[in-house]
Amino acid sequence: MEYRKNFDLRNERNLTMLVDFYELTMGNGYLNKNLGNKITYFDMFFRQIPDNGGYCIMAGVQQLVEYLSALKFTDDDIEYLRSKGEFSEEFLNYLKDFKFSCDVWAVPEGHPVFPGEPIVTVKGPAIQAQLVETMVLLTINHQTLIATKANRICRAAKGRPVMEFGSRRAQGYDAAIYGARSAVIGGCSSTACTISEQMFGINAVGTMAHSWIQLFDTEYEAFKAWAEVYPNNCLLLIDTYNVLKSGLPNAIKVFDEILKPQGIKPAGIRIDSGDITYLTKLCRKALDDAGYPDAKIVISNSLDEHIIEDVLTQGACIDSFGVGERLITAKSEPVFGGVYKLVAVENNGEIIPKIKISENEAKITTPGFKKIYRIFDKKTDKAVGDLIALDDEIIDESKPLVIFDPVYTWKKKKLTNYYVKDLRVQLFKDGIKKYESPDVLEIRDIAEKETEKLWPEVLRLENPHTYYVDLSSKLWNLKHNLLQSYSDTFNE
Amino acid sequence: MEYRKNFDLRNERNLTMLVDFYELTMGNGYLNKNLGNKITYFDMFFRQIPDNGGYCIMAGVQQLVEYLSALKFTDDDIEYLRSKGEFSEEFLNYLKDFKFSCDVWAVPEGHPVFPGEPIVTVKGPAIQAQLVETMVLLTINHQTLIATKANRICRAAKGRPVMEFGSRRAQGYDAAIYGARSAVIGGCSSTACTISEQMFGINAVGTMAHSWIQLFDTEYEAFKAWAEVYPNNCLLLIDTYNVLKSGLPNAIKVFDEILKPQGIKPAGIRIDSGDITYLTKLCRKALDDAGYPDAKIVISNSLDEHIIEDVLTQGACIDSFGVGERLITAKSEPVFGGVYKLVAVENNGEIIPKIKISENEAKITTPGFKKIYRIFDKKTDKAVGDLIALDDEIIDESKPLVIFDPVYTWKKKKLTNYYVKDLRVQLFKDGIKKYESPDVLEIRDIAEKETEKLWPEVLRLENPHTYYVDLSSKLWNLKHNLLQSYSDTFNE
Repeated sequence: MEYRKNFDLRNERNLTMLVDFYELTMGNGYLNKNLGNKITYFDMFFRQIPDNGGYCIMAGVQQLVEYLSALKFTDDDIEYLRSKGEFSEEFLNYLKDFKFSCDVWAVPEGHPVFPGEPIVTVKGPAIQAQLVETMVLLTINHQTLIATKANRICRAAKGRPVMEFGSRRAQGYDAAIYGARSAVIGGCSSTACTISEQMFGINAVGTMAHSWIQLFDTEYEAFKAWAEVYPNNCLLLIDTYNVLKSGLPNAIKVFDEILKPQGIKPAGIRIDSGDITYLTKLCRKALDDAGYPDAKIVISNSLDEHIIEDVLTQGACIDSFGVGERLITAKSEPVFGGVYKLVAVENNGEIIPKIKISENEAKITTPGFKKIYRIFDKKTDKAVGDLIALDDEIIDESKPLVIFDPVYTWKKKKLTNYYVKDLRVQLFKDGIKKYESPDVLEIRDIAEKETEKLWPEVLRLENPHTYYVDLSSKLWNLKHNLLQSYSDTFNE
Repeated sequence: MEYRKNFDLRNERNLTMLVDFYELTMGNGYLNKNLGNKITYFDMFFRQIPDNGGYCIMAGVQQLVEYLSALKFTDDDIEYLRSKGEFSEEFLNYLKDFKFSCDVWAVPEGHPVFPGEPIVTVKGPAIQAQLVETMVLLTINHQTLIATKANRICRAAKGRPVMEFGSRRAQGYDAAIYGARSAVIGGCSSTACTISEQMFGINAVGTMAHSWIQLFDTEYEAFKAWAEVYPNNCLLLIDTYNVLKSGLPNAIKVFDEILKPQGIKPAGIRIDSGDITYLTKLCRKALDDAGYPDAKIVISNSLDEHIIEDVLTQGACIDSFGVGERLITAKSEPVFGGVYKLVAVENNGEIIPKIKISENEAKITTPGFKKIYRIFDKKTDKAVGDLIALDDEIIDESKPLVIFDPVYTWKKKKLTNYYVKDLRVQLFKDGIKKYESPDVLEIRDIAEKETEKLWPEVLRLENPHTYYVDLSSKLWNLKHNLLQSYSDTFNE
């Protein structure tokens, strides 16, 4: 695709300074205290699945890789930071000569991910691993949120194409651009956002707004004009004045007069307001009766997974959906609460696990340098659960594996006839990029394939089963020993 | 400010192609049907105030002006569009030589705005006025949403500084960058988003995360190290392990040992989890007892206007708030539903009003080329209401003015001793920029001043009075005559 050359152009923004100011004050402090080059391990993980769903769809890794590859402080950045009066010249020089040297691992895009899992890990000098916190979180939080929401909406549509139509209500330009990307990863067939096709090769679509109809003296004239310009893409918006009394009969009249004589089949109609179930049933019948059984009915009016499920249950006759604001903002739960926490440091090459305590159990971190194993049943090829283990733990697939609930530890399950997959890939080694991102359409395929490996009970929109995310015995013991020792300290 | 030179750098992205694809298919169609240069009038307006609030704060005009000033299709853009196979060479040539020639009006940033008001109007050739739809809406919808939410949150904080802390949970990079800008317009004192200070001159702040504390062997050592590096900005995060048993006593110990001997007052403490009211009361007492009555208590834990109001009502001792995800995503209502509708066309220089009908009354548009008058009571200088009038209507302030509810028309009010302000400014004339945006901090002052002119009943967070937005008699008659004529057509 020739036009993909724009890709780089659109991404040449330097976002190095999109950093929470405290990452800089801490960096300056680390350097001052000779901790700047101390090797640290930070995990990104999240605690809850939006909309009480059963799974999330990982997204944003490609943009994370691009950001980390492009880290650079300009002279202007240094000058600005100096003007704040809080940073030493030593630190400013460090930033001026900044060279990213971290190791980074992440779950590849499109894979289902679950609460508590280290979906990204950054290992490297404290200054650097701290500095990238905001962008790691911002990038993965946003795209995973939208990919997850899109997956729910597409699941509700039961195979009918879902078009992403939300740019105008997105929270900023990137929310539209990368939101469209994430929506397609989640399963959308296309987007209205033109620049997103240019950047990512996802299909951009669109026909007319109400203004097209209003600009002509009558709706009939507007439809006729459209059919003349776009005979092969004649999808008419029929709710400008009155769907049943005006839009529908005018559309059929134009199909009859302009398309039929040319032997061209109409693309169909779109309805953007009113009672969807009632109107689409009548429209379907009228189109069929008029000899247009292949004409599609497209709906676009504040849709989400629940409305789509409702209208389909009621027997609405819909071929595809345009979904706007409730997808592009994940309106029902617009925050993906990923966090980025220190989980280990190195002392003379030895990994020392670190923990963050909280009175809220959910906020307690899992210490250590870890990996995620996804466990599959060999017979069904379904995912049985995930096991978070320390990085040096190897699972011997020839032996039974006992997994247990990390809270109710007597709840155990003995697995045989399984295989495991190390879920994460390495993105950077010593600051050098080691990963080439698949195309967005390939990622969509991955998402489809990998979610199919979850049991239907986990994929359910309402009241899904909780997917097992367990800790290895070794990791569980490490965490609980640390918790006990803090508890003892504060209750001496 | 020397570093403001970065401003242009950060904005050199060309967002011309951030356009819903149907704006291009319609443009191509207009040209084909000799309507490309027909003069059209499009209004942006919204129908509802988020969170059932009483007012919104206009924001995003500066970015709208920048976008419109930079409109340009590159050769790559043209090549990409040609590859879609839907556009005529005539249209592609039009885009290649695109020259923006519209007139644009908008309410300046920081002003309260209300449902139904034409907060932006674009007048110009149909192709052009249609083309900018997505970016007009995206820009104003996003920033107005966040400025409005921020204003609610700051109002709840009753004069205490509110810091915007949400970058990591923002919906994309621009949501962080322009979200911080909008938050400051709404009243925030500062942001954690460093690049937003660089771009807009708003204050970026921050101290430490939990990772700073975890990186040291003990919390005490971590606090001591911070006090040594930043004696004059010693705000310690005290909830890594246990606020009362560890964080608070360690903080006071470090204030005593490191700062007191130097005669430096500690900045204070920050708490990011736990029972805010309970903890802050105990912390306040302990700090006072230790001789640090000026040490501030900063709170940051999933706050919004309701939690802030609650904890202050309960007597929590808080000096300032850091507000993250619930501000930067406007979590409680993350969509600002502004729309962009054709309201008039010109035929041989005569303005012909256009209307969009809907079975949902709220979706019916107000036709014609209009202006907004804000009416102030001369005695109190409070805003009495807004009057939407046709553009050529002049109000004679020396005569009484009768305004009436556009639905319940018998509800009238006769105004005397008033003055009116034409609320909108012209941004572009014949495509030439006519407007210089104030600085963000000036806009914040405008917002503060202009909201003060609303009655407290309108500013209320819960159950506010509905501010009057009425139509002039002439406009009301125009709209109702059009509605009647369509009603007659469909019920012949």
